[in-house]
Amino acid sequence: MQQSRYEKGLTKLAEIDGEAGEKVVNGLADICPDLGRYIVEFGFGDIYSRPQLNLKSREIATVAALTAMGHCEPQLAVHIQGALNVGCSREEITEVMLQMALYAGFPAALKAVAVARGVFAQAEREAHA
Amino acid sequence: MQQSRYEKGLTKLAEIDGEAGEKVVNGLADICPDLGRYIVEFGFGDIYSRPQLNLKSREIATVAALTAMGHCEPQLAVHIQGALNVGCSREEITEVMLQMALYAGFPAALKAVAVARGVFAQAEREAHA
Amino acid sequence: MQQSRYEKGLTKLAEIDGEAGEKVVNGLADICPDLGRYIVEFGFGDIYSRPQLNLKSREIATVAALTAMGHCEPQLAVHIQGALNVGCSREEITEVMLQMALYAGFPAALKAVAVARGVFAQAEREAHA
Amino acid sequence: MQQSRYEKGLTKLAEIDGEAGEKVVNGLADICPDLGRYIVEFGFGDIYSRPQLNLKSREIATVAALTAMGHCEPQLAVHIQGALNVGCSREEITEVMLQMALYAGFPAALKAVAVARGVFAQAEREAHA
Amino acid sequence: MQQSRYEKGLTKLAEIDGEAGEKVVNGLADICPDLGRYIVEFGFGDIYSRPQLNLKSREIATVAALTAMGHCEPQLAVHIQGALNVGCSREEITEVMLQMALYAGFPAALKAVAVARGVFAQAEREAHA
Amino acid sequence: MQQSRYEKGLTKLAEIDGEAGEKVVNGLADICPDLGRYIVEFGFGDIYSRPQLNLKSREIATVAALTAMGHCEPQLAVHIQGALNVGCSREEITEVMLQMALYAGFPAALKAVAVARGVFAQAEREAHA
Repeated sequence: MQQSRYEKGLTKLAEIDGEAGEKVVNGLADICPDLGRYIVEFGFGDIYSRPQLNLKSREIATVAALTAMGHCEPQLAVHIQGALNVGCSREEITEVMLQMALYAGFPAALKAVAVARGVFAQAEREAHA
Repeated sequence: MQQSRYEKGLTKLAEIDGEAGEKVVNGLADICPDLGRYIVEFGFGDIYSRPQLNLKSREIATVAALTAMGHCEPQLAVHIQGALNVGCSREEITEVMLQMALYAGFPAALKAVAVARGVFAQAEREAHA
Repeated sequence: MQQSRYEKGLTKLAEIDGEAGEKVVNGLADICPDLGRYIVEFGFGDIYSRPQLNLKSREIATVAALTAMGHCEPQLAVHIQGALNVGCSREEITEVMLQMALYAGFPAALKAVAVARGVFAQAEREAHA
Repeated sequence: MQQSRYEKGLTKLAEIDGEAGEKVVNGLADICPDLGRYIVEFGFGDIYSRPQLNLKSREIATVAALTAMGHCEPQLAVHIQGALNVGCSREEITEVMLQMALYAGFPAALKAVAVARGVFAQAEREAHA
Repeated sequence: MQQSRYEKGLTKLAEIDGEAGEKVVNGLADICPDLGRYIVEFGFGDIYSRPQLNLKSREIATVAALTAMGHCEPQLAVHIQGALNVGCSREEITEVMLQMALYAGFPAALKAVAVARGVFAQAEREAHA
Repeated sequence: MQQSRYEKGLTKLAEIDGEAGEKVVNGLADICPDLGRYIVEFGFGDIYSRPQLNLKSREIATVAALTAMGHCEPQLAVHIQGALNVGCSREEITEVMLQMALYAGFPAALKAVAVARGVFAQAEREAHA
């Protein structure tokens, strides 16, 4: 039997973001649950599940874009963790942010590495817990 | 003897963008030659020459960011060709653009694939010439 | 029998944008057909088909956003025509653009009314043909 | 006798934003009072007082634009309350934000619904006080 | 007798932009004349007429912002000419654009110097006519 | 003997931003020290050290751009202090922000003057200490 787009999306979301992604989705239950549903169905069930690009490249692309856009800290935090989860090193992640200084300027890069610092520190705390 | 940052940058620029990158730089000679010099020295001599990230990942990051920013068509064209040059497939490039619909909306993705169409067609004409 | 999301989206797209929307989708066939498919399925089959907001309000929201974002002329043109199709007057459309000067500045408003001029002129030519 | 643009603007501002708008204006007294004066005179005395668009449509347009722009949380909060004041339902407001995912991406929509949650909760507290 | 805000604005606009500014305003007559009126009244009658900043600094600020925003070429062209009119040298103008690479990235700077090239060439043609 | 780009940049950074700039650079030591190095070398050693524009005009340009971009508060704070350090008055700084309402809308101007309030208050506290 065919898996629904939502189930497929939840599985992919968990593969990339662990519990953080599901927290974002559940956190929308009281204000706009369908936004969470579309993130799962369309974002992860449709897009991230496509075979045309591996997950590591997808997370590099997302970290690059969220850094360049400059006003997406919470999503950037989720996808920095996602990038770590799918095999990016810390060095690769901050290198993507550094490169974005060329395209979006230094303030965007500075904001992004500040978010990365928080995510890396949290990951370390959890590794030691 | 040590290579200058400019020479190092020119070599890296040629490796990624072929003649297109040098055209951009030379095209600045009459209006702001130092802008071209900094792109070579800082952009390619410093940043793109760093070993922390491979060139394919760098181009995926750049295509993602320029797609998401939405108003950088000429640079996007140069970097789509650059992505092809360093080993990205056409499918990977348009897949990055498609994924950006999630983060920057459909208009940004639509603009980017229109630029990709032009670059791919030009690449085909040159392959047959 | 249940209509597919794609069929539902195509019907809604035609209701709003007439042939212009389908042209955008078909125009993607050679470069990224799935982008067109997602616009139909997710954009129009899921979002624009929801009953929570009437189509006139949806088009006002879209014209406002595309004006404010400042770099989405082709989509803005499609949605100006869409706004006319679902019952907005020309005056209401340019009024939304004028109001955007407050939130996104005068350059964004100026670009948008220039796009509106072209769409209104085209609509007039077609009305007289 | 003719009402001044400032008086006309203050009246319109109170009609839309209640006390929140005047707080923004008064809050500028110590740093840039003329910015507050222009918001009243030009923003509300000139633009929002025009008859070409009803206030509900104006607030839908503003909520859409501030959501899409992605970095205007305080103004978005004021205009979510304004939208409620002029007759938009909560569902219409979050629906506009959801629709913006199509044009400005999911991060912009997620930020906006988080602001809406705060405004709705505050409105409830005040209704019970 | 007191000059109206519109008359004051027209005079200031002519001082800065010569005929180019009035052309922008007149060009709006058929599509949104009030947008032109507000640019004159609010933009030039109110803001640019204030004594708190000299016109050269104002044009440097405007060229910087329009460069950084990245999608305002027509207004950038008008204000490059305006900057020349109020005493900025070509070198100062392109230097502002070059500096913007730090804050908004190289694509924004590249777009801006391309606009400057066109304006400078036009100014030369007119000087020789 | 020739000063290195880094030493030249540190000197220029101190001239403009006092200790605040060096704090930003040092604050990157644990997460991305090379980002700090490039800000010093390229940002201040290369760009801000160029003779083509005086420092006061440079800071006016930067304050304008960071105001217009709307999502760079920490850098804006550093450069408001920098603008004060190189001779801009408070009134000139808030006037630049006010003018940006024309190009980037009122929310951007409002965010910037809120940052200015904080920087001015801090400067006062330090002057009285």
